Amino acid sequence: MFGFQYYTPTQVVFGKGTESKVAELIRTYGGTKVLIHYGGGSVVRSGLLKKVTDTLDAAGIAYVTLGGAVPNPRLGLVYQGIELCRKEGVDFLLAVGGGSAIDSAKAIGYGMANEGDVWDFYDYKRKATGCLPLGVILTIAATGSEMSDSSVITKEEGLVKRGYSSDYGRPKFAIMNPELTMTLPDYQTACGCTDILMHTLERYFTNGGNMEITDALAEGLLRTVMKNAEILARDPQNYDARAEVMWAGSLSHNGLTGCGNDGGDWMTHKLEHELGGLYDVAHGAGLAALWGSWARYVCGDCLPRFRQFAVNVMGIAPEGTDEEIALKGIEALEDFFRRIHMPTNLRELGVNATEEDLATMAHKCAVGVNGAKGSAKLLREEDMLAIFRASR
Amino acid sequence: MFGFQYYTPTQVVFGKGTESKVAELIRTYGGTKVLIHYGGGSVVRSGLLKKVTDTLDAAGIAYVTLGGAVPNPRLGLVYQGIELCRKEGVDFLLAVGGGSAIDSAKAIGYGMANEGDVWDFYDYKRKATGCLPLGVILTIAATGSEMSDSSVITKEEGLVKRGYSSDYGRPKFAIMNPELTMTLPDYQTACGCTDILMHTLERYFTNGGNMEITDALAEGLLRTVMKNAEILARDPQNYDARAEVMWAGSLSHNGLTGCGNDGGDWMTHKLEHELGGLYDVAHGAGLAALWGSWARYVCGDCLPRFRQFAVNVMGIAPEGTDEEIALKGIEALEDFFRRIHMPTNLRELGVNATEEDLATMAHKCAVGVNGAKGSAKLLREEDMLAIFRASR
Repeated sequence: MFGFQYYTPTQVVFGKGTESKVAELIRTYGGTKVLIHYGGGSVVRSGLLKKVTDTLDAAGIAYVTLGGAVPNPRLGLVYQGIELCRKEGVDFLLAVGGGSAIDSAKAIGYGMANEGDVWDFYDYKRKATGCLPLGVILTIAATGSEMSDSSVITKEEGLVKRGYSSDYGRPKFAIMNPELTMTLPDYQTACGCTDILMHTLERYFTNGGNMEITDALAEGLLRTVMKNAEILARDPQNYDARAEVMWAGSLSHNGLTGCGNDGGDWMTHKLEHELGGLYDVAHGAGLAALWGSWARYVCGDCLPRFRQFAVNVMGIAPEGTDEEIALKGIEALEDFFRRIHMPTNLRELGVNATEEDLATMAHKCAVGVNGAKGSAKLLREEDMLAIFRASR
Repeated sequence: MFGFQYYTPTQVVFGKGTESKVAELIRTYGGTKVLIHYGGGSVVRSGLLKKVTDTLDAAGIAYVTLGGAVPNPRLGLVYQGIELCRKEGVDFLLAVGGGSAIDSAKAIGYGMANEGDVWDFYDYKRKATGCLPLGVILTIAATGSEMSDSSVITKEEGLVKRGYSSDYGRPKFAIMNPELTMTLPDYQTACGCTDILMHTLERYFTNGGNMEITDALAEGLLRTVMKNAEILARDPQNYDARAEVMWAGSLSHNGLTGCGNDGGDWMTHKLEHELGGLYDVAHGAGLAALWGSWARYVCGDCLPRFRQFAVNVMGIAPEGTDEEIALKGIEALEDFFRRIHMPTNLRELGVNATEEDLATMAHKCAVGVNGAKGSAKLLREEDMLAIFRASR
């Protein structure tokens, strides 16, 4: 095992009606002029945005609003947000939505607290030295961005999707009311559950440093999310299942399920970033479409972990060779994806990629990771291409 | 399930040699004049204290020292610490040690940041509105105080042991090097493991609000701690086992294993507080000596949870009546306590309590909880006395 840092300062306020505490929380963290940042019209249609502005009005907290954060949130809107915040003297950001709104708000926060072009951080050129304080009202359980240090932004020019991680970007508070996720389309709910699973799986399949306590937490989280994702596929209005998935989403990406390891693998995410950049597919569905091909490609180089996963998480009987057990575990997770109507290849994802597209994505991915990345197996451009090909 | 708040702002720096980062961390959190607070001579003898003062000297950070925090830390030393801090203009507290030094430092911090008698907080009379910032170098894995909001202090007059919990008291950082716990006597190591288990068990045995994700994490933590406690009973120098237990100790009491429940039971702790106040026994050993008697007394009122514990944590086959399965789970945990040389009754603890002593403790305990407490079963003074009697 390795040494580690664990830092999750976000104050979580979880449960029914907790959005009513937003003004009190903004005040606690010193906000006097707020940018309310959100995505499409769903928070408008649901009345949540009005509820939030009413609460701030009643508390006498000034605000401006900026909607339009899309899945795979765009750099253009980030620049627009920074300009608006500067003009309006904003000192606190409130993201109302899912990962897109939160990640976009984090980028605006970096832009506000640092000189120069905010894209530099996402382009691995510089490190941020601060971030405007940020709070969240979460409406989608998926990215874990409400407690995590990471944000992912897509630059329109060349459709470059990049992530940046910094403790400065961790939200001050996260309001999580599972009821707010009930209006999500089933497909988005399943995408979210997949993303949550993947945040722990990326940390789980490594070739070094696993702690038993971390494994125990990770395996428990994975089993719980799978069970409740299936409940939600049948019964989307189930509050308890919504709550289980929502809290698991935060724990899956706040660092907890990776303590003591070598940092994790993360190649399924990196491959999906290229897919998301080029085809604008839903992130969770993209991950599901790629995972099986990645897993089969790397499994032989990380056999003890794939075996452990099969037995402890997927309930495979420990009979046969390690390879057989590992493969059954991979198949069982793919079966689960099918049961929640997630794709297990590019075709099912609706992506009809040419050989040239695959080569472009593999090349961009390899450049993005400076040549090679992966802990389960170190992948180079030719490996990435092979995985993309296998996923068609 | 219930709504909940989860707030663990403590920056954890975990691994070999991490104590070398103490000056850098104190500076990050604004400390310019430090009180180094510790317990007995072990941190002096081991050279850790000198290492810390050398590091602060090299960094040009001023400090004063105050040793003498004992197990069941005393109010008198807290007053002495507050006086010293005021005189010396201390603006940051560094606890070097285990729960006693940390809890004592928290109390000093409350005394510094609030007017009036600091005992008022422990005596349920007032709430603190702040705490001097506090960092920790942990040398004993047990109380979880390095990430928790709680501290327990004993008032010498009448030997009154009381706990106070406030988010203000959560440490800014916790340096955790598992190597620093290797010089602990085996008995203290086992006491620590017991305390860690109990922090999750107290949250686990409730009659309301359990979340599946919380249960999964709690059960994984309990199994991991038991396994590694047994390894340490045979091989105290095992770094990996030390690390597993140390990190589990923080996670067991930072709130994670209670999210969504009704606050937990906590009666074994409350009963042990009276035992610790009167006989000054090691906290973990006191908990082990009482737990079985508590469990048998309350089990019928919390049967589904005791059954789940037996099957999921203790590996009892789900055969027979719920009562039979539950009882086997209780017996299995007592067997575990014996294997790590912990007592399972007062006699084995070395306490020869008269009927009058038991009545005194039950009465003080009932007064301390305003008459009644407990979620597995609500206990009144007569129930407390019955449990003390059964534990002889």
